[in-house]
Amino acid sequence: MKETTIEEQQDFVKDITKMSDDFDRWYTDVVRKAEMADWSGVRGMMVVRPYGWAMWENITRAFDDMIKESGHENWAFPLLIPQELLVKEAAHIEGFGPEVAWVTKAGAAMEELEEPLAVRPTSETIIGHLIRRYIQSHRDLPKLTNQWNSVVRWEMRSRLFLRSREFWWQEGHTFHASAQEAIDEAELILGYYRSIAEDWLAVPVFSGKKSRAETFPGAEHTLTLEGLMRDGMALQMGTSHYFGQNFARAYDISFSNKDNEKELCYSTSWGISTRLVGALVMAHGDDSGLVVPPRVAPIQVVIVPIYRDADGRAKVEAFIGGWTPELKAAGIRHRVDWRDERPGDKYAHWELKGVPLRLNVGARDADAAQVEMVDRLSRQRVSVPVSGIAQRLRDELDAFQKKLFDRAHEFRKENTYELSTLDEVVAHFKERGGFVWVPWSGDAECEERAKAEAGGVTIRTLDDEEKPSGECFVCGKPAKHRVSLAKAY
Amino acid sequence: MKETTIEEQQDFVKDITKMSDDFDRWYTDVVRKAEMADWSGVRGMMVVRPYGWAMWENITRAFDDMIKESGHENWAFPLLIPQELLVKEAAHIEGFGPEVAWVTKAGAAMEELEEPLAVRPTSETIIGHLIRRYIQSHRDLPKLTNQWNSVVRWEMRSRLFLRSREFWWQEGHTFHASAQEAIDEAELILGYYRSIAEDWLAVPVFSGKKSRAETFPGAEHTLTLEGLMRDGMALQMGTSHYFGQNFARAYDISFSNKDNEKELCYSTSWGISTRLVGALVMAHGDDSGLVVPPRVAPIQVVIVPIYRDADGRAKVEAFIGGWTPELKAAGIRHRVDWRDERPGDKYAHWELKGVPLRLNVGARDADAAQVEMVDRLSRQRVSVPVSGIAQRLRDELDAFQKKLFDRAHEFRKENTYELSTLDEVVAHFKERGGFVWVPWSGDAECEERAKAEAGGVTIRTLDDEEKPSGECFVCGKPAKHRVSLAKAY
Repeated sequence: MKETTIEEQQDFVKDITKMSDDFDRWYTDVVRKAEMADWSGVRGMMVVRPYGWAMWENITRAFDDMIKESGHENWAFPLLIPQELLVKEAAHIEGFGPEVAWVTKAGAAMEELEEPLAVRPTSETIIGHLIRRYIQSHRDLPKLTNQWNSVVRWEMRSRLFLRSREFWWQEGHTFHASAQEAIDEAELILGYYRSIAEDWLAVPVFSGKKSRAETFPGAEHTLTLEGLMRDGMALQMGTSHYFGQNFARAYDISFSNKDNEKELCYSTSWGISTRLVGALVMAHGDDSGLVVPPRVAPIQVVIVPIYRDADGRAKVEAFIGGWTPELKAAGIRHRVDWRDERPGDKYAHWELKGVPLRLNVGARDADAAQVEMVDRLSRQRVSVPVSGIAQRLRDELDAFQKKLFDRAHEFRKENTYELSTLDEVVAHFKERGGFVWVPWSGDAECEERAKAEAGGVTIRTLDDEEKPSGECFVCGKPAKHRVSLAKAY
Repeated sequence: MKETTIEEQQDFVKDITKMSDDFDRWYTDVVRKAEMADWSGVRGMMVVRPYGWAMWENITRAFDDMIKESGHENWAFPLLIPQELLVKEAAHIEGFGPEVAWVTKAGAAMEELEEPLAVRPTSETIIGHLIRRYIQSHRDLPKLTNQWNSVVRWEMRSRLFLRSREFWWQEGHTFHASAQEAIDEAELILGYYRSIAEDWLAVPVFSGKKSRAETFPGAEHTLTLEGLMRDGMALQMGTSHYFGQNFARAYDISFSNKDNEKELCYSTSWGISTRLVGALVMAHGDDSGLVVPPRVAPIQVVIVPIYRDADGRAKVEAFIGGWTPELKAAGIRHRVDWRDERPGDKYAHWELKGVPLRLNVGARDADAAQVEMVDRLSRQRVSVPVSGIAQRLRDELDAFQKKLFDRAHEFRKENTYELSTLDEVVAHFKERGGFVWVPWSGDAECEERAKAEAGGVTIRTLDDEEKPSGECFVCGKPAKHRVSLAKAY
C-alpha cells in the first residue's frame, strides 16, 4: 500500500472553505462540492442532486415505515389551492399569505383564471376542506392523513436545504374524536421525530413545547425538536402541533359523537423537511467535508481498488468480486470506485462526501485475503480479513453511527450552559453560541426583552419535565418554566 | 358459518352502475366507492385517497428498485420553470404550451413577477438546462436521471386517474455518449415497463414503436405499451422515447468525446403515471367492483371475524391473534375487519375494493383450527388449515396473480383480430372494440384516412418483429409494417 502513503497523510481538503474561517461558506461549499444540491437558476429554488436526494429518501423511508405501522395513511391532495380556501382562516393567511406564489393564468392563450390558485405553501387548508367529506361519525375517526410533497414559499433569503422557495417534506394532518387522543398523537409523532433525529441522523435534540410567541399560528401548542449545529446555532428539526378544535372550527370539520351529537374534531399537524439534510451536514461535518451517519448514507462503504497495471487490476478486481456479493446480500450500500483517478484523489473525494467506511484494496491485500479499512471519523487504518467481512462491516457501521451520535452529544454538552440573569445571557451570546438554560416567568415581555437585548436569541424549548426553581432571568419573578435559549436558523 | 349464507349468495353489488350498462359510469363509481380517488373541488384536480395511493406506491417501489439496480438516480428538479426555458424548443412548446398553468404573481402584495413561471407540465426543459452543468466529458456519461413528482396540464376533459389537471408520475431523462447506448436505454426501460404492466398489474400488453404521427414531439422514435381495457378500448400504459441528438441540440448539451472533440449527447425520456392505477381498474374490474392484482394490492388478505356475542368475539379474536403474526412475518399485507357491521356488508365492502383473498373466521373455525377462504375471482369457499397458513396464502396470492393475468390475456385474445381492408376495419369498429392487426404501407395518408373513416381509430404499435406480408389495408401497396389498430383512451 506504499504507493498511496503520501496522499493519505494529507487531510484531503480541496477547494472548500475551512469551517472555522467562514461557517456559511463552508456549508455551501460542502453541500455543492459533495454533489448534494445546487441553486437551480430559478431564483431561490434548489436542484437536489442524487447524493443529497438519496439521504432524504432514506429519511422518508424510515419515517414512512413508522407512521404506517401506527395506522397513518398517505394521500395525495392537490398542488393548487383556490384563494378562497387559503384566506378562510385568519391566522393561516396571516402566516402564509406573504409567501404565496399565485397561478393566475392557464392554457393556450394564457387566459386569466376566474380565481387565482395558490401553489400550496402547505396543504392544511385544502385538507381541511376535503377531509370533511370523509368524516361523519366517530366511527370515521381518527383520520390519520399524511402527504409527501413539495411546497412553495416565496422566501427572500435563501440557503441550500435550510431555506428555499421550494422544499420537500411530509405534512401530517390528523383528526380525532377527543382532545386527549389528539394531544397523544402530537406526542407520538414527536417521538418518531426524535428517533429520526437521534437514531438515524445521530443528532441529539432537546424537545418540548414552544413558548406562546413561537407557537404555530392557530395551534394550542407546538412541540419541537432542536438540534445544535457546529457553529453553535440551534436548528429546529421538526414540529408537531396540537390545534384543539381551532382548525376544525375554521373549516367546519365535525362528527357525530357516541351520544349522536355533532362535535368539532380535534386535530394535529406535523412536518419534517429536506432541512434535515442540511442539519446532518452542519451537525457532523468538518474541514474535510461531510460525515454522513451510516443509517442515512447513500453509500456506507466505498471500496478503492489500488493497482499499477492491467495485471494488478485484474487481480484486485477478481478479489473484490469474491466478497462484494456478501455485502449486497447483507444490505450494505457500497460502491467500488473504478474511476480513472489516482487513489489519493479518490480518498479525498469520498472523504468530502463523508462516506463512513473506506476499504483500500491492493494486490497484497488480495494475497493476504484482507482489506485496509479507514473510517471517516478516526481515519485510522485497520486490516480486516475478508472472511466474515459483511458482519464486520455491519458492526463497524453500527459503531460508527453510535460514535457520531456520542460526538455530537459531547459537543452539545460542552456547549450547553445554565445561567441566571439577562446580563449573563447577553454577555454569553456576545461571545459564543450553544444552548443556555434559564428559569423564565412565562411572561412574553421577558421573552421579547431577551430577544432584543441578546441579539435575536429565542426560547427554543420549554422543559416541562423538570420543576423550575429560582427566579425569571429577566424580571426576577418566580419562574414557571425552565427554558432553553439559543440563536437559531 | 350459517349466519352469513344469505349474504354470501348475493353478488354484493351495491350502488355501482353495471359495467355492461355504462362503462364510464361504472368506472367512476368503482374508483369513488372503492375509496381510491375523488374530484377535489379544484376543477380537474384529483384527491387520491389512501387505497388508491397505496397502489401507486406499490408500483413506484417496484419500478424504483428496477431503475436503481441499473444505475439510475433520483433527482429533484424545480417545480416552477421560467417561460424562457419552456419556449426554447419549438416542438416542446407546441406540444405543451396550451396546457401550461402560469405563476405570474407572488409574495405579500401579489406582485407581478418579471417573468412568468410555468408549473411544470414535464421537467424536460429544466432538466435539459441544468444537466449541462454536470456533463463535460464522456466520463460523466451516461447520466441516468429520474424524478418522482406531480405535473400540471390544463386539460379540458377529465377522468379520474386517466386525465386530470394534476397527475403523479416518474419522468426519466438520460444522456449518453452514443446513439446505440441511448437506443438500448429506451429499450431497457420499455422492458421494465412491460414487467410492471404484466408481472405487477397483470395486464398483458402489445409493445413496439409508434407511427411517425403518434411519436412524441421532438423524438426520433417512441416505444409504447398498449393494454386492453374491458370495454375494448386500448390504454397507453407507458412510453419510452429516443431523441437522438435533437433534444441535446435544442438545449446545447454536449460532451468532449474520447477523441477530445465536442459532441452533442444522445438522450431518452420515459414515463409512467397514476394512469396505471386507472388501467388496473378497467382491465380487471367487474360488476361487483375492483379486482386488485395481489402484487400491488394495498390489502392482499382481509379477515372477517364472525361472532354473535362477546364470548364468541373473544374466542375468534384469540384464534385470529394466534396466526396473524405469521402473515405479518411473511410480508402478507392483511387487515382484520373489526368494524361494527354485519358480515355480509363487510363481504360486499371488500369485494368492491377488490381484495384478492378473504378469510371468514367464526367460532367453529377456531375449534377446527381452520379458516374459510374465498377468492375474489372464483368466489369459491375453501377450508384452509391454519397450520402453515402463511405459505398457503403466499401460494394462493401467486396463483391469483397468474389467474388474473391469464384471464386478461384470454380476454385480449378473444378481442384481437386480423383484418385486411379498410372496409373490414370500418365495419369492425362500428360493432366492437379490441385490437385489429393489419398490414400497413407506412404512409401517413393511409393512417389518417383510417382514423377519419373508422371513428378515430389509431395505430397503437408497429410490430417490427414479424415480417409484414400482403398489402396495405388502405392503399393496397406492399406493406412495410404489421400494425395494431384500436380506439384508445
